[in-house]
Amino acid sequence: MSSIRLAIVGLGKIARDQHLGAIEATDGIDLVAVASRNAKLEGVHCFSDIHELLASGIEIDAISLCTPPQGRFEQAQAALLANKHVMLEKPPGATIAEVFALDQLAQKQGKSLFATWHSREAAAVEPARKLLSERKVRSVHVEWKEDVRHWHPGQAWIWEPGGLGVFDPGINALSIVTRIMPESFHLTASELSFPANRAAPIAANLTFASASGIAVTAEFDWRQTGPQTWDIRVETEEGPVVLTHGGSRLLVDGTAQIVEEDREYRNLYRHFVSLVNAGRSDTDFSPLVHVADAFMLGRRNVVEAFED
Amino acid sequence: MSSIRLAIVGLGKIARDQHLGAIEATDGIDLVAVASRNAKLEGVHCFSDIHELLASGIEIDAISLCTPPQGRFEQAQAALLANKHVMLEKPPGATIAEVFALDQLAQKQGKSLFATWHSREAAAVEPARKLLSERKVRSVHVEWKEDVRHWHPGQAWIWEPGGLGVFDPGINALSIVTRIMPESFHLTASELSFPANRAAPIAANLTFASASGIAVTAEFDWRQTGPQTWDIRVETEEGPVVLTHGGSRLLVDGTAQIVEEDREYRNLYRHFVSLVNAGRSDTDFSPLVHVADAFMLGRRNVVEAFED
Repeated sequence: MSSIRLAIVGLGKIARDQHLGAIEATDGIDLVAVASRNAKLEGVHCFSDIHELLASGIEIDAISLCTPPQGRFEQAQAALLANKHVMLEKPPGATIAEVFALDQLAQKQGKSLFATWHSREAAAVEPARKLLSERKVRSVHVEWKEDVRHWHPGQAWIWEPGGLGVFDPGINALSIVTRIMPESFHLTASELSFPANRAAPIAANLTFASASGIAVTAEFDWRQTGPQTWDIRVETEEGPVVLTHGGSRLLVDGTAQIVEEDREYRNLYRHFVSLVNAGRSDTDFSPLVHVADAFMLGRRNVVEAFED
Repeated sequence: MSSIRLAIVGLGKIARDQHLGAIEATDGIDLVAVASRNAKLEGVHCFSDIHELLASGIEIDAISLCTPPQGRFEQAQAALLANKHVMLEKPPGATIAEVFALDQLAQKQGKSLFATWHSREAAAVEPARKLLSERKVRSVHVEWKEDVRHWHPGQAWIWEPGGLGVFDPGINALSIVTRIMPESFHLTASELSFPANRAAPIAANLTFASASGIAVTAEFDWRQTGPQTWDIRVETEEGPVVLTHGGSRLLVDGTAQIVEEDREYRNLYRHFVSLVNAGRSDTDFSPLVHVADAFMLGRRNVVEAFED
C-alpha cells in the first residue's frame, strides 16, 4: 500500500513538539505540506492556510489539524469536502454539535476521521483498562494539576471561550478515565474557578456517578508550581490501581508495573495509518461531552486575576 | 391493544397545567398512579417517590417524568431497569452524558424512551418544516423573551446549576429550529448574562453557523415584561417564513396561515402511545447539545442581581 501523503495545518507548539517527529518515525505516512499563517518548514510545500493548500493542486491524501479548536470545524469540513482523510488534535472542536456534524460528513464522504486523544496512548492506559475489566471498581479519583505558565506560555486562545482553560489538560484525564472505566458515567456536580480577568476556568472540581453508582471525582488545577501531578487513582475490591505521570506509569496494589518512554503521538499516527488503510473512523467524543456538561452544570467562583 | 397504564413522577406546575389534561384527552393511555414528595391526586394510587411506586407492586407499563432535570437520571434509570417505558419532560436531563446513557439503557432493555420537546408539537412547526425543505434559507433569527416572574414563580431549581436559567424556555426555541432547519448547525459565539446572585443565566445571545454557512442567531431574555415574544423569523430567497407565539402561528411571505389552539401535550402523549405500541424510541437530544455548547463556548457577563 502506498504511503499516505499528509499535510499539517497549524505549525504551533504542539505540531513542532510532537507531530513532526511522530510522523517522521511512522511507516506508511509522509509529510508533504504544511499550512501555517506565520511559520514555514523546510523540505515541504508551504501554504498560508488550508484553502490555499487545497486550491494548490498538490497531491495529498490526508490532513492533520493542529490548530486551536476554535475555527477548526471550517478547516475539517473543507478537508472532508475535498475528499481528504482528517486527523484532529484534541479537543476535536469547540462544540459538540460541530464534531457530530463532522462525523456525519466523514461517513457521507467515505473518508476516515480520527478524533485523537493522545493521553489514551500513554503506556499504562491499555494495561489499566484490561485490569479494571476484571476487577470490581469502588471509586476513581483524578488529580490533574500543572503550571499553566510552563505548559501554555502566552497562548491567549486557551483563555478565550472555546479554549476550555484548565479543561485543555483536564480533558486528557477524562480521555483516559472514559477509556479505562468498565461502565459509562455522568456528571452530578461541577465547581469552576474563573480568574477575574479570564473567560475560561483555571481550576475545576468535578463529581460524576456511574450507572451502577461508582463515584468518579476529579480535581483540575492550573496553578500548581513545583512537581506536576497527573494521577488517576482507582480503588478496587482487589486493591488500588494507580496511573501516574499522565498515564505513562502504572502501580498495581502498590507495585510499579510500567515505566516506559512516551510514544503517544507515534501511536496516534500509526493508528491513523491503520484507520485510513482500513477505511474506518475513530470518533469517540465522550471526553468533550463531559467537558460541555461541566460547563453547563458548573457553579462558578471568581478567583484572583491571572496574568501570563 | 390494551391501554398503557401510566404513572407520573413529579406533580408540580407543568404536570398539573399540561400533563394531566393531556393524558385524560388521549386514547390508549390511562393515568393509574402518581409519585410526588408533597402532592396527592384523587382517584389514583399515590406514592412519595418513584422507588416506593416501583416497589408497590401495582401494575404500570410506563412512567412520565415531570420532575426537574437535576436528579432525573436516577429516576429514568430505575424505571427502565424495572422494564417501564419512559417519557421525559424537557430538558431530558441535566447532562449530555446521562441522556446518552439512558438512550443506550432503553435499547438494552427493549423499552421505549421518548425525549419530548413540546414546542415541536406547536401547530406551525410541521408546516414550516415542510415549507423550508422546499425553499432556500438565507438566515434564521430567534427572539424568545418572556417574564420569568410570571412563568417560573419561586422555582428556585431553575436558577441552580442544571436548571439552565433562560435556556429553560430558550431550549424550546432550539427544539423548533433544529426541527425545521433543512441542515444541521453549530454554535460559533455565545454571550451569557448571569445575575450577580444566581448560578444560571437570565439572558443569552447566540450565533450559530450551518454547514453551508447560513447564520442562525438567537436572543433569549427572561427580563421582558408586557407582551411576551416567542418568534422565529426565517428569511428565504422566496420570502420570509415567520413562526410567532411559540410556534403556534405561521406567517408566510407576510400572510397569516395558521391560528390554532394549543394541542402540544396531547400530541406528545399520542406520539408516546404510538412509540410504545410500535416498540420504538424517539430521542433527539440536539437542543440540549446546543445548550451545553452555549455554556462551554459562553462568554459571561455579570448583570443586576435577580430577586424573585
